[in-house]
Amino acid sequence: MGGEIWVYPFSEGSAEMRELLGNKGANLAEMTHVLAPDRVPDGFTVTTTACVEYMRSGEVPDGFDEQVAEGVAQLESAVGKRFGDPDDPLLLSVRSGAPVSMPGMLDTVLNLGLNDGTVAGLAAGSGNPRFAWDSRRRLVQMFSEVVEGVPAAEFETALTEARENAGVELDRDLDADEVRALVARFLEINERHTGHAFPDDPHEQLRRAIRAVFDSWKNERAVTYRRLNGIPDHLGTAVTVQRMVFGNLGQTSGSGVAFTRDPSDGAPGADGDFLLDAQGEDVVAGVRNTEDLDGLAARMPEQHAELLESLDRLEKHYRDIQDVEYTIERGRLYILQTRSAKRHALAAVRFAVDAVSESLLDREGALRTIDPGSLDALLHDSFDPEDSYEELTRGVAASPGAARGAIVLSAGEAEARAAEGQDVILVRPFTSADDVGGFDAARGILTSQGGKSSHAAIVARGMGRPCVCGAAEVVVDSGGERLAIGGRELAPGDVIAIDGSTGVVTADEVHLVPPRVSDTFTQVLEWADDMRRLGVRANADTAEAARQARELGAEGIGLCRTEHMFFGSDREQLVRDMFIAGELERSRGVGESSDPGAGGEFADALGRLGELQRSDFAAILHEMRGLPVTIRLLDPPIHEFVDVESFRRDLTDAERTGNREAIERARTRLEVAAGLEETNPMLGTRGARLGLLLPGLYAMQGRAAVEAAAEVAGGGDAPRLELMLPLIAFESELESLRGLVERAIDEALEAVGATLEVTIGTMIELPRACLIAGALARRADFFSFGTNDLTQTALGLSRDDAERGFLPAYLAGALVARSPFESLDREGVGELVRIAVERGRAADASLKLGICGEHGGDPESIEFFHEVGLDYVSCSPFRVPIARVAAARAALD
Amino acid sequence: MGGEIWVYPFSEGSAEMRELLGNKGANLAEMTHVLAPDRVPDGFTVTTTACVEYMRSGEVPDGFDEQVAEGVAQLESAVGKRFGDPDDPLLLSVRSGAPVSMPGMLDTVLNLGLNDGTVAGLAAGSGNPRFAWDSRRRLVQMFSEVVEGVPAAEFETALTEARENAGVELDRDLDADEVRALVARFLEINERHTGHAFPDDPHEQLRRAIRAVFDSWKNERAVTYRRLNGIPDHLGTAVTVQRMVFGNLGQTSGSGVAFTRDPSDGAPGADGDFLLDAQGEDVVAGVRNTEDLDGLAARMPEQHAELLESLDRLEKHYRDIQDVEYTIERGRLYILQTRSAKRHALAAVRFAVDAVSESLLDREGALRTIDPGSLDALLHDSFDPEDSYEELTRGVAASPGAARGAIVLSAGEAEARAAEGQDVILVRPFTSADDVGGFDAARGILTSQGGKSSHAAIVARGMGRPCVCGAAEVVVDSGGERLAIGGRELAPGDVIAIDGSTGVVTADEVHLVPPRVSDTFTQVLEWADDMRRLGVRANADTAEAARQARELGAEGIGLCRTEHMFFGSDREQLVRDMFIAGELERSRGVGESSDPGAGGEFADALGRLGELQRSDFAAILHEMRGLPVTIRLLDPPIHEFVDVESFRRDLTDAERTGNREAIERARTRLEVAAGLEETNPMLGTRGARLGLLLPGLYAMQGRAAVEAAAEVAGGGDAPRLELMLPLIAFESELESLRGLVERAIDEALEAVGATLEVTIGTMIELPRACLIAGALARRADFFSFGTNDLTQTALGLSRDDAERGFLPAYLAGALVARSPFESLDREGVGELVRIAVERGRAADASLKLGICGEHGGDPESIEFFHEVGLDYVSCSPFRVPIARVAAARAALD
Repeated sequence: MGGEIWVYPFSEGSAEMRELLGNKGANLAEMTHVLAPDRVPDGFTVTTTACVEYMRSGEVPDGFDEQVAEGVAQLESAVGKRFGDPDDPLLLSVRSGAPVSMPGMLDTVLNLGLNDGTVAGLAAGSGNPRFAWDSRRRLVQMFSEVVEGVPAAEFETALTEARENAGVELDRDLDADEVRALVARFLEINERHTGHAFPDDPHEQLRRAIRAVFDSWKNERAVTYRRLNGIPDHLGTAVTVQRMVFGNLGQTSGSGVAFTRDPSDGAPGADGDFLLDAQGEDVVAGVRNTEDLDGLAARMPEQHAELLESLDRLEKHYRDIQDVEYTIERGRLYILQTRSAKRHALAAVRFAVDAVSESLLDREGALRTIDPGSLDALLHDSFDPEDSYEELTRGVAASPGAARGAIVLSAGEAEARAAEGQDVILVRPFTSADDVGGFDAARGILTSQGGKSSHAAIVARGMGRPCVCGAAEVVVDSGGERLAIGGRELAPGDVIAIDGSTGVVTADEVHLVPPRVSDTFTQVLEWADDMRRLGVRANADTAEAARQARELGAEGIGLCRTEHMFFGSDREQLVRDMFIAGELERSRGVGESSDPGAGGEFADALGRLGELQRSDFAAILHEMRGLPVTIRLLDPPIHEFVDVESFRRDLTDAERTGNREAIERARTRLEVAAGLEETNPMLGTRGARLGLLLPGLYAMQGRAAVEAAAEVAGGGDAPRLELMLPLIAFESELESLRGLVERAIDEALEAVGATLEVTIGTMIELPRACLIAGALARRADFFSFGTNDLTQTALGLSRDDAERGFLPAYLAGALVARSPFESLDREGVGELVRIAVERGRAADASLKLGICGEHGGDPESIEFFHEVGLDYVSCSPFRVPIARVAAARAALD
Repeated sequence: MGGEIWVYPFSEGSAEMRELLGNKGANLAEMTHVLAPDRVPDGFTVTTTACVEYMRSGEVPDGFDEQVAEGVAQLESAVGKRFGDPDDPLLLSVRSGAPVSMPGMLDTVLNLGLNDGTVAGLAAGSGNPRFAWDSRRRLVQMFSEVVEGVPAAEFETALTEARENAGVELDRDLDADEVRALVARFLEINERHTGHAFPDDPHEQLRRAIRAVFDSWKNERAVTYRRLNGIPDHLGTAVTVQRMVFGNLGQTSGSGVAFTRDPSDGAPGADGDFLLDAQGEDVVAGVRNTEDLDGLAARMPEQHAELLESLDRLEKHYRDIQDVEYTIERGRLYILQTRSAKRHALAAVRFAVDAVSESLLDREGALRTIDPGSLDALLHDSFDPEDSYEELTRGVAASPGAARGAIVLSAGEAEARAAEGQDVILVRPFTSADDVGGFDAARGILTSQGGKSSHAAIVARGMGRPCVCGAAEVVVDSGGERLAIGGRELAPGDVIAIDGSTGVVTADEVHLVPPRVSDTFTQVLEWADDMRRLGVRANADTAEAARQARELGAEGIGLCRTEHMFFGSDREQLVRDMFIAGELERSRGVGESSDPGAGGEFADALGRLGELQRSDFAAILHEMRGLPVTIRLLDPPIHEFVDVESFRRDLTDAERTGNREAIERARTRLEVAAGLEETNPMLGTRGARLGLLLPGLYAMQGRAAVEAAAEVAGGGDAPRLELMLPLIAFESELESLRGLVERAIDEALEAVGATLEVTIGTMIELPRACLIAGALARRADFFSFGTNDLTQTALGLSRDDAERGFLPAYLAGALVARSPFESLDREGVGELVRIAVERGRAADASLKLGICGEHGGDPESIEFFHEVGLDYVSCSPFRVPIARVAAARAALD
């Protein structure tokens, strides 16, 4: 290891060295080549391998400190200043830079190199003693907090006291002497907490700051962020050491964040913030309200032009919207950082279309810039234009989409309420990395401070949560639980609505309406359709859902759950009667007939259900003319239909009438219902099992489906009917039920005098079905993976119980990265799918394979389904566009 | 197919042709070579392939009828008689013969070739008109029942009437004219039912009889038998066509069944039945009481000697106990059939030992003659010798072992009561193939008719059920539900006990005591231990069970379920308190401490449970000194410990006291308990999941285990402690819990100043665990397959619900061959085990692999576990000897 290189000057790096130098280090190196000379403050990057080595052994590797010293020496000669020079000191920043972007998650220390000696030199050199002491103040504060773990609150308190003593409102209004006194105060605080003096040796400062950044890789919020974003823990972070430049040197200085295009909607033209006489962190924290780039142009037209030129070079070079940090030090523009901008789906889609028409990217390249998961935001709700409401206030429209929910004032509260199923809006003065969990839980975010590039805005856009920022009329005191919006007193729990596309906040009842697909989105979807190999269908149980699905581009129905047609009071009663009568006849050894004409209560109930199903099916099939429709035969949660309590009530009612026959009947029905109760309904008499116990049931459904199909086919352009048998574990079940359903279909077709191509397939939703897929393939025309149940059985966890029980703790403790119900568990469930695909296709190369679990709408899962060679995915109608793009991305990768 | 040979004369067959000629056909051919000339009545065999072809296409293959005709012609010339010759007709039998023995399950027709013409010739040739007409009577009856499906009852009624009219008690006392009249009656019955005249053409009779035997392969009882015995449906049956010989030609004729050794206990020397002036079917049906072979010796010493000589040749040739059917026709001995005898385990074990000392077999060969599953009978109960009881009657000791239960009079009733968990004794006049399901359900069988070779005796021995046969003092009228034993009136539901080793029947309360292992059994077990590769451990949760297991040869404990130690009132209360307190502290964010000294109710309860566990563990470990003991950390069925109803009662009690604090506490506890209720407890917060939510729990158990081990180790010869983590689905769970348990162990060992080798492994009981076995192997010292839960999750069926719900219907409908909880489902669960073994061993070649589900005691499953390369099986103590032999058999195969 001794010969390894741990330190790379910017001039020796490049974008390709991302893994080694981190995003920031690689980009700084790349930027150095792309931009005008000296536009990037010079520096060097410590490699991720050094971090990994440090995490492994607890110590930096051999030769590391020497290489850092050499890096500093080179930098000194390039810049022409010396680190620790009491006359004109070189100051350094130390920043983290992981190979994958983790904004704000890892630590940073600025102004390294300042001590009581050099601060005087800086004051003299800059001609601005206040600046010098304030820089020293910032160093002491950040170093104490980040490197030495001193609580931030102590410094905030001291700062507040200093402002009060001085009678000023803003930190910047403290004069040099006041800041100098504050530094002394900060040093005391530091010493009291650490038990030793603040390190004055610049090299010692640097040494410890680098180690602190390494350590920050493992802090809790970073771990949480990685877990939420699926970033592996073993990558480690690089550390970039760079000369400091200052935006807080008066009226010719400033800092800002600029985007090459609007990250909210993708509108062309640079967009961003500028804060005069301020450092970059003031901009990102969102604690002072910023100007926009027009403000900069008005103040410093030359620098504004240089910035636009730099932005142009960067976007053309990286061929993507860039998010650029810049600082102007006494009229000189420096670009500190660039990265692909986090953007709202609106912006992603518009950029993709514009980039192609601007010949910046080809269609494939443009599609690659879109995160399919983010498109969910385009399918979010907005305020119903018909509703009128009072606008309490209006803030920055920071992340589009509308949301409504109860006010919560902390991230923890948001998580707790959301876990109870409540819709909440997180309302904060501003947000920080500690709040990320709350973003995930909330329907929307509202802040009183910060702009489009504030933490709240960036994170909300990334997560597709509606967000209104910098709404100054929101007065929130999370400690005292007091809240007022636009002068109206509100309390936690009160319901408000926000529109992140307009910035509006209201407390009136306003309805949210679903989105429509924009032209650019339509364009992107058309490209995606050309590129993808996977078919995309929808899960739809009603004609209305089928219609929506078709509008959103579904190429058929992959899952029509017949049990969903039975919920609703009249029908539920009928289904109850059917189960009770069927079970009763079965236990008496009759009722095996599949012919509703055979008489008896069971056949009666079946007959009536059959009528209802036929018309339901006809309506759905009508919407899907010309496309395939997969109808899953009944897989009822019996315990939801047959509620023993209701039978007990029926008995009580009967006893009140005194009618002996009625009492006897109610008693029998109660007994049967009680006999149907199960310890583990998930693993009980469901699906195929029920179909085999009550053969009349599937026969009725098969008949109803073909009768409906024959009816619709009469109008031409017949739908393609596919009947699907659920919960198959044994080949014998499939054989037996297929025979039963085929006979019913043949009879029904003969009766109506129609011919119809009907295929019969099976759900693959049990581990055993995956393993015997070869045998099943010889008896099934298609497989459809039911990954919800497959997840429950492969992992041995009941979704209901796990989500109330241990799963939240597992997610919080990073024992699992994402809920296996949201994103397919590739190692377990995915492996079963892979095995089933291999074995199924080996037995029948032409076997049609689809997936109809909820994972069918999750981009990561879709990537996997593409990879293993499925023919189609099926998801909820509003996920269809996402699935189309995700399928295209998967085909490109 | 035209060129295929469908018919083989006996002289052209051999034992190796079993698959083609069936057991019977192959054996007849082989016997023809082994025995003295003409000892076997000549004939030919129709192949199983002809049957398979017939089942496939519904028709016999091309050339089939011609080949049969050719076979008949050859036979005619060998015997010197012609088929259909009115003067001296050749008569033929047609019998089924599957490649695997299915005694009594398939159909047979005798006396083919008799019609109104030939019957006169037979009368003249035999000089016995009564015999001739009775033969004709039997043909008409069997042909009508078997081939034409005429109900047997009609013939029985006619026969009864004929006896009554003639004033005789037995069929044989009807004279020739009376029988002739009866034949006319039978022909009328036949014609009324079939609508056509009885076929008089002998070749037509043969043609149809062969097809009827083919058809019988698919009759319900045959299908049931195959399902119960795991015989594949596709084999088909051969059909043997053989010249008839007659045992019912007067006082120099007779039939019998002989065994080369006693099939009940293996005592050397021929054993069997003889029935003078009777056909073989009279012997097997057990409707007339037989003489033993001494009776034959007294009547016909020469034929007796010939029989013994034949038996000796056959046993020496086949090197196994033979079950031989013979007939003496007017002083001439014919051997009709031989096969390996079904035997009681006592006989199997004794024969194995004797065969080795007689140099008939080597040890491996001897062991191969033992069906390990049958050994269960040796581990069955017997009457407590201390008890005194009144002997109601004594019958034939037909299948050893004692049983006690409520009287049931039909197989259906036996199945129904057994399904409710009741112990029943099936009491019948005699039994037939239709009763097989009832044998399986009953604890024991008692009949009033038949001997050791009756249907009841054979089937009971095969199934290891105690059986007393031919107890003439049992008077049973299953129609009228009347029953008397030894003159005492009893009723269905009354409890009796039978001893199948002595023949005793009693209605007194007698205790059943467990068996002791005989010397021959010990000998066999020692051989088995030399031959087997698999280790055999026991599942034991108490010191007593551990002691028994060790006595029965267990080489350690493969599964000690700690939750089983907690059942019992005091402890259950403590466990309840622990769960409630733990959950309460957890939800309040405290209680994460694993240190019982940390205080709080949870720590308190843990501390007290820890004390109990330590002493439980010490007692078990003491019994297992020098051997490995696998302790599974808690995997509780929370819903069994935390019964919400009891907390509701506690609240009601508290409310009665009016004590506000008590009420508040009771209410809180009720809320927590209600929060622990789960929809699917099987898939809920169990095992590792609970261990992670309440870290103190496993820490306590780890500590208790090592403290106990350290205590026992003090006496020298320490047990080898293995701690096992249940229900692992994710590598992260294993990593986290292993760390937690290791820390607890290290602390405990340091505290007691001991060193101890403790290994930590995991249950593999979820499909996902099998798939990620490679990753788990890198963190586990051993795997133990929990095939019970693996079956539930892989097949998606809750054992409780399935066994009450659809599983009985699946078994009855032959959708599954055996319950997957009894015998490992190889295609599904077995495949997962195979995958886990491969992946686990690929990651760590030295990984120790065992199985501790109930399948560990099932011979078929053990064969599989040997095959996939596990290191050991673990089963209940009384299955240990079976597992030792099964493991040896598996190693030989």
